[in-house]
Amino acid sequence: MYTDLAVFSGRAHPELARDICARIGRPLGNVDVFEFANENIFVQYQENIRMRDVYLVQPFSTPVNRSIMELLIMIDAAKRASAGRITAVIPFYAYGRSDKKDQPRVPITARLLANLLETAGADRILTMNLHVGQIQGFFNVPVDELNAIYPVSAHFRNERLQNYTVVATDVGDEKRARDMAVRLDMPLAIIEKRRIGNSDRTEATNVIGEVEGRNVLLLDDEIDTAGTMTEAVRVLRANGCKEVKLSGYHGVLSGPAIERLKAADADEIVLTDSVPIPPEKRLPNMTIIPVAAQFGDAIARIHSGHSVGALFQ
Amino acid sequence: MYTDLAVFSGRAHPELARDICARIGRPLGNVDVFEFANENIFVQYQENIRMRDVYLVQPFSTPVNRSIMELLIMIDAAKRASAGRITAVIPFYAYGRSDKKDQPRVPITARLLANLLETAGADRILTMNLHVGQIQGFFNVPVDELNAIYPVSAHFRNERLQNYTVVATDVGDEKRARDMAVRLDMPLAIIEKRRIGNSDRTEATNVIGEVEGRNVLLLDDEIDTAGTMTEAVRVLRANGCKEVKLSGYHGVLSGPAIERLKAADADEIVLTDSVPIPPEKRLPNMTIIPVAAQFGDAIARIHSGHSVGALFQ
Amino acid sequence: MYTDLAVFSGRAHPELARDICARIGRPLGNVDVFEFANENIFVQYQENIRMRDVYLVQPFSTPVNRSIMELLIMIDAAKRASAGRITAVIPFYAYGRSDKKDQPRVPITARLLANLLETAGADRILTMNLHVGQIQGFFNVPVDELNAIYPVSAHFRNERLQNYTVVATDVGDEKRARDMAVRLDMPLAIIEKRRIGNSDRTEATNVIGEVEGRNVLLLDDEIDTAGTMTEAVRVLRANGCKEVKLSGYHGVLSGPAIERLKAADADEIVLTDSVPIPPEKRLPNMTIIPVAAQFGDAIARIHSGHSVGALFQ
Amino acid sequence: MYTDLAVFSGRAHPELARDICARIGRPLGNVDVFEFANENIFVQYQENIRMRDVYLVQPFSTPVNRSIMELLIMIDAAKRASAGRITAVIPFYAYGRSDKKDQPRVPITARLLANLLETAGADRILTMNLHVGQIQGFFNVPVDELNAIYPVSAHFRNERLQNYTVVATDVGDEKRARDMAVRLDMPLAIIEKRRIGNSDRTEATNVIGEVEGRNVLLLDDEIDTAGTMTEAVRVLRANGCKEVKLSGYHGVLSGPAIERLKAADADEIVLTDSVPIPPEKRLPNMTIIPVAAQFGDAIARIHSGHSVGALFQ
Amino acid sequence: MYTDLAVFSGRAHPELARDICARIGRPLGNVDVFEFANENIFVQYQENIRMRDVYLVQPFSTPVNRSIMELLIMIDAAKRASAGRITAVIPFYAYGRSDKKDQPRVPITARLLANLLETAGADRILTMNLHVGQIQGFFNVPVDELNAIYPVSAHFRNERLQNYTVVATDVGDEKRARDMAVRLDMPLAIIEKRRIGNSDRTEATNVIGEVEGRNVLLLDDEIDTAGTMTEAVRVLRANGCKEVKLSGYHGVLSGPAIERLKAADADEIVLTDSVPIPPEKRLPNMTIIPVAAQFGDAIARIHSGHSVGALFQ
Amino acid sequence: MYTDLAVFSGRAHPELARDICARIGRPLGNVDVFEFANENIFVQYQENIRMRDVYLVQPFSTPVNRSIMELLIMIDAAKRASAGRITAVIPFYAYGRSDKKDQPRVPITARLLANLLETAGADRILTMNLHVGQIQGFFNVPVDELNAIYPVSAHFRNERLQNYTVVATDVGDEKRARDMAVRLDMPLAIIEKRRIGNSDRTEATNVIGEVEGRNVLLLDDEIDTAGTMTEAVRVLRANGCKEVKLSGYHGVLSGPAIERLKAADADEIVLTDSVPIPPEKRLPNMTIIPVAAQFGDAIARIHSGHSVGALFQ
Repeated sequence: MYTDLAVFSGRAHPELARDICARIGRPLGNVDVFEFANENIFVQYQENIRMRDVYLVQPFSTPVNRSIMELLIMIDAAKRASAGRITAVIPFYAYGRSDKKDQPRVPITARLLANLLETAGADRILTMNLHVGQIQGFFNVPVDELNAIYPVSAHFRNERLQNYTVVATDVGDEKRARDMAVRLDMPLAIIEKRRIGNSDRTEATNVIGEVEGRNVLLLDDEIDTAGTMTEAVRVLRANGCKEVKLSGYHGVLSGPAIERLKAADADEIVLTDSVPIPPEKRLPNMTIIPVAAQFGDAIARIHSGHSVGALFQ
Repeated sequence: MYTDLAVFSGRAHPELARDICARIGRPLGNVDVFEFANENIFVQYQENIRMRDVYLVQPFSTPVNRSIMELLIMIDAAKRASAGRITAVIPFYAYGRSDKKDQPRVPITARLLANLLETAGADRILTMNLHVGQIQGFFNVPVDELNAIYPVSAHFRNERLQNYTVVATDVGDEKRARDMAVRLDMPLAIIEKRRIGNSDRTEATNVIGEVEGRNVLLLDDEIDTAGTMTEAVRVLRANGCKEVKLSGYHGVLSGPAIERLKAADADEIVLTDSVPIPPEKRLPNMTIIPVAAQFGDAIARIHSGHSVGALFQ
Repeated sequence: MYTDLAVFSGRAHPELARDICARIGRPLGNVDVFEFANENIFVQYQENIRMRDVYLVQPFSTPVNRSIMELLIMIDAAKRASAGRITAVIPFYAYGRSDKKDQPRVPITARLLANLLETAGADRILTMNLHVGQIQGFFNVPVDELNAIYPVSAHFRNERLQNYTVVATDVGDEKRARDMAVRLDMPLAIIEKRRIGNSDRTEATNVIGEVEGRNVLLLDDEIDTAGTMTEAVRVLRANGCKEVKLSGYHGVLSGPAIERLKAADADEIVLTDSVPIPPEKRLPNMTIIPVAAQFGDAIARIHSGHSVGALFQ
Repeated sequence: MYTDLAVFSGRAHPELARDICARIGRPLGNVDVFEFANENIFVQYQENIRMRDVYLVQPFSTPVNRSIMELLIMIDAAKRASAGRITAVIPFYAYGRSDKKDQPRVPITARLLANLLETAGADRILTMNLHVGQIQGFFNVPVDELNAIYPVSAHFRNERLQNYTVVATDVGDEKRARDMAVRLDMPLAIIEKRRIGNSDRTEATNVIGEVEGRNVLLLDDEIDTAGTMTEAVRVLRANGCKEVKLSGYHGVLSGPAIERLKAADADEIVLTDSVPIPPEKRLPNMTIIPVAAQFGDAIARIHSGHSVGALFQ
Repeated sequence: MYTDLAVFSGRAHPELARDICARIGRPLGNVDVFEFANENIFVQYQENIRMRDVYLVQPFSTPVNRSIMELLIMIDAAKRASAGRITAVIPFYAYGRSDKKDQPRVPITARLLANLLETAGADRILTMNLHVGQIQGFFNVPVDELNAIYPVSAHFRNERLQNYTVVATDVGDEKRARDMAVRLDMPLAIIEKRRIGNSDRTEATNVIGEVEGRNVLLLDDEIDTAGTMTEAVRVLRANGCKEVKLSGYHGVLSGPAIERLKAADADEIVLTDSVPIPPEKRLPNMTIIPVAAQFGDAIARIHSGHSVGALFQ
Repeated sequence: MYTDLAVFSGRAHPELARDICARIGRPLGNVDVFEFANENIFVQYQENIRMRDVYLVQPFSTPVNRSIMELLIMIDAAKRASAGRITAVIPFYAYGRSDKKDQPRVPITARLLANLLETAGADRILTMNLHVGQIQGFFNVPVDELNAIYPVSAHFRNERLQNYTVVATDVGDEKRARDMAVRLDMPLAIIEKRRIGNSDRTEATNVIGEVEGRNVLLLDDEIDTAGTMTEAVRVLRANGCKEVKLSGYHGVLSGPAIERLKAADADEIVLTDSVPIPPEKRLPNMTIIPVAAQFGDAIARIHSGHSVGALFQ
């Protein structure tokens, strides 16, 4: 059904696409993607893609909704240009927290996006660290989900951290923290927040597990506005912890994030480059772990029919 | 399957939604639509919509891609909230010019959008002046397409224009101009552009039909950057025409549009309010024809099962 | 599209279906459901259901795979008999733990089931305490998910428990425990298990949070083989806790469950009747909370178009 | 789209899967299929199947509903593991008699199953002797239907039967008997049953065609409870026939089948091994014709793109 | 979803549509259906059908392929005109014999037609005497299949036939004959044809069952070219039968049918008016049983949600 | 997924299919396509097509509705015979003018046809000069649309026409004329028709652009009844033009076309052989441009994965 491999990038993160191509030793494919003055996105592949095994790299990073629409349009164009197989490579899948109806009359946008991608014509998905693994099940097409825990834990292991506890920032998200704790052979603690009385505003935050006198590694799947995390830092310090390292797999860093992270004064902030982190958001205490190797190797294996899971063993 | 009517608005054009509700004597429905700092759109209907006949008003106006995503999310939320029937009310359907593959390896985004709307859960579409009528056929669900020619031609008839010719701005779009010419009982002319030699840049523009010594009414489906139209004005004046009126059903007015329109110094510019036209884009020679009555009447008829076509007879 | 309400039961849990009907003051519908000697299930509705609003009550309880197939066949028969709307009422949704690919080359059976139900013709789903809320997003059709936390927490509130801590049986499941802790205004603790070294067998289990000298309420979404829970009881007692109450929303009680529960000698075991609990599994320290009222009220509201969410406010 | 061939077996009939693999000279693929105590089936392929041409062998034999669910789950797992093409190999397709609505408000389960298989992700079907050929049309995907008439008639030809008549056990099923009669060059007779009066119970059975003084070969697509067949034997003997041989392509042998077959005391009972026939059901007068050669050859031809029909010419 | 009932007719059989409307006391709906010179069919409903319960009467009678296309186009127009529910009323469903792959590389056109009807937008089907009942299962939408055995057997009962045997014209079709035999309390016989040797041409036809000295009623689902039936008459007379009556539910009467029927000189030929039988094909010995009452009553019941099956009890 | 290429023809235009095969140096595939006396079309491929890349050549030419049904049936048979990929080659796509709802309650048959082709199983479409390019967007599968402007303009260039103007026969269709005018470097004019007053009958036709004293080349996408074109010739001559050449890409020539074309006495009529033009319709002043080379080259390129667009550069 398809012949050789071709990788193209939307406008969301061309650097990552280039790094992926470097990893697999292929030139990045030539495609025009731009907007007219009326914001209508235009896409045209500048090379023949009939029967080719096409990979479209586009994290759902800012501007988020445009990045999504752009990928859908790129998929449509590839399908109509008779691509052999189309893999949407989405290093960061936005709207992951809209994954269930926990209030009446809300959408499940993470599922909607899955439907839209399949409707546009995606034959498969390659992504990394979905907000929850269940989002895989929102797709009917095969999903390969990479896990940044491998490069990120390797980084921390290299630092030979002593006396550290991994802390989950909220009840419900601690599986991710536990997996890291196991890989780094550290204990686990969890921060719990509760509303007090009828007020929406007043919250009591307490720490479940031992943190006094310990160093902590706070882990979340993404650092977005950094509100949860910097509040956690405050509570942990109030509970007597010492060094604080923060890590999120996706560095969304929206709104007041940078200001808050500066104020939190952590010992280290570790992110990946799954979304672009512009120079003005790169703090001195920030370490950015590249993920192009993981994506490149996964694409090479998907193309050749080798196991992607074997990458991690 | 459904009970009473409910109209909700996204963020694209709440004024129009309110005007439509006023027309049909119903309060605008209560829905929360906003973005988190990470640009993820959140939607929650603040009233029960089970089994109701729901109308979601959202032109695909600026920011275009966000407006589209927002409508898709609103539809998903309504579907999961057990709405009885969901009509997407899209006074302006963007991406209308991406309606065929006139170059290799381009998308047909107008069709993609139709698929996305159906996938999200739209049961039917109410729109106005699609770029071409064939876009109706991009949908499997029923489409009601209103035509602004009725209120716009009524406006011009009231002006008792004398000695006027309707002019289409390009070959391929003159059906719309012809329909207006017939309604106003005016002759028709067409502007034709051709590239000269191998150069992409040099164009010869000539007018097919009589315009010398006549007044002209230039008509297009939308006024976007106004480039085509203001170039047409220049050519027409060079060909000896006198008064110039411009009309577009959708006032997109993107990029240099306002500057160009000011420079063109037309006798009148007639638009509808299918998309919001902010105060800073409202020129003194601009007339804005409201379309809420048309939409309101159509919604009332769709809800009650009366003919929408009968509106225009 | 549909007229009056009709409730039918498969063979999985007719008692619950009868209780639901009693709640809404309607007779249980007349349907033949049986198997031939060759195990082929036969279904025939013994009353006209054209255009009716049909509810099919069938938890995915033992024999699980037969219960699933039977519901699918009942849906097919109802669809072909021109039912107006078909709601699959699934008080317990099995295969909930097969909700993501956490190992290579495994299914996501919870999503598969959703697809099968939609394919058979279910127009909507009414269920209770899915293993995770994201399973809602496995469906394209509307899902109403009831929550047994309301009747179960009411039960515990009536007991005026003192000095109690709610304990989650494993990392990753503590959101449910937290919600109960909030409703009962109790602190939260979590049990964490880790493999030691390279051995699959040896596990270290430790408790995160304070339990010494406290009474504990262990909560899970279901009590299946009761292995996790009874091991938790052992660990908690080793950590010095006193009274122990166990609660699971779904009393699956498979394999060695009853033996283990007897041995665990808990102060109380609280389940609901979402799945049938046969007399031989009803221990003296077991309290079974009926859920027919919740289901009955939800069905009445779905039928009449009233908000189901409002039930819980 | 796919590379090399891989055959896997569910739990329904591993012997047949092994025989098929022996025929085509390939090892049986390695897959874990088992149930947890809660009866939830778990599947994991123990080898990479990306892009492979996968054949899943699973007759719908006892426990029937579990066998069906298990195959659906195996297909889902294969699809999500990026199998190149998935062929469901179903030597015996249960529910074949639920193929039309001959009473009000019954399902058409044979069609439902076809939908479920396609929904799970089967790309094609390989089966044998469907109850009626029209079941092929219940599928949108290609179906290859093998016919056990070839090996079974070869067996009877080897026996050089004299003075035999082929008898169909009921009106409506005699096409199968006729095809056998033609291949064996024997005459045809048919048994007809009618209810008498208003009673459901009393039936008059008579034989259409000549059987007195003749030997008979009774043929059906399956021998299930053997009720029809053993009643036929009684009637035929009452009508003066001599030797009696029974044949069914699928040896379902449910309920009282073995007892009845013993009592019928036929000269020979000929079945195939399309479903497993356990030792305790293997009677001394039973001949079991293997079908692995047919399935193996068909799989080899499907894989290489050769005609399957040509197998039978 | 829908309001009042509306019946429309294509060009295939307007008489029947009118008779149906007379039966239910409604005027036949006003629709334009015609062809341009280029054979493109045009359809326009001349009255508002929004939300109405629409019935489109069109047997697949000559010109068959045009009748099919015309119905599909009528369905599309009704769907786009926002009909509430669309029932395709197909008194005769052509291509019924293309219901399985009994040779390699042939279509299953009866299933294809079902897919086409569903794709066009048919919500349900009302038909009569499908070639085999399994064709119901080719549809996912509900099918109501009427049975002409009721009016036709009533006709024969009125004739008080004596000494009659019902004869099926070929092996494989005798279920229909048996049902008639049971209703008329007559014995059954079957005609069997076999090829002799390797020649395609030479056939031996023999009769299974007693016909000598008896009167016969030959029954088939349709009388098409009448070849099978008139050959059967020849064989039966050669076997000594006396009076001969012929009956087919659908009077297709194609090609040499009328000539053959004249030559066969039967005592009576009984057909229904499910397809139009033009005057030149109406032989003196032909009785045509009207079916409008059955269709009218069924439509009235479908519209009001009453059981259609109850019509026949 | 597929191996070698195979081209088959329906009954609509076997000459073209043969010419295409000659162009690509392959024998035309062997398929039986015929009708039974009852007009049911039968299709059987006489060679194995498993996994082959199959091209089915069938313009929608007279008898139009049969040609459409026949192609659908051929696609179904190919799909069920396990063809690897199926391309519907439709040199002339009928019903192109039914492409939007320009009146209430009419179908959009061009979209319906697209749905039917996809439902039957077409994987892609190869066609030529659709009535409007937007019909591409009626398909979800890839469409390659060839353009007869290349061979037709080459023909006119060879004639070294002097003093010629290209004329569009009606407002709304002049894009095609403009494209030809650009290729031949000629000016453009347009004929406009208007109804006068309330009468349906009286039309005023006038010419927009200069034609007096000039030769004209009238161009349309198809010449159907030739009414529009021959009326245009009359008007143009009345306006003083001299030589008149007529061209249509598709020579439908239905109804009175030939009579009218004879009477029009044009200097040349240029058509392609996209539909068969029988000898009795071939006028002395008619030139028929073959299109087999274009289709052959496109098929070869589609099969091998080369760009089709590159054909035209």
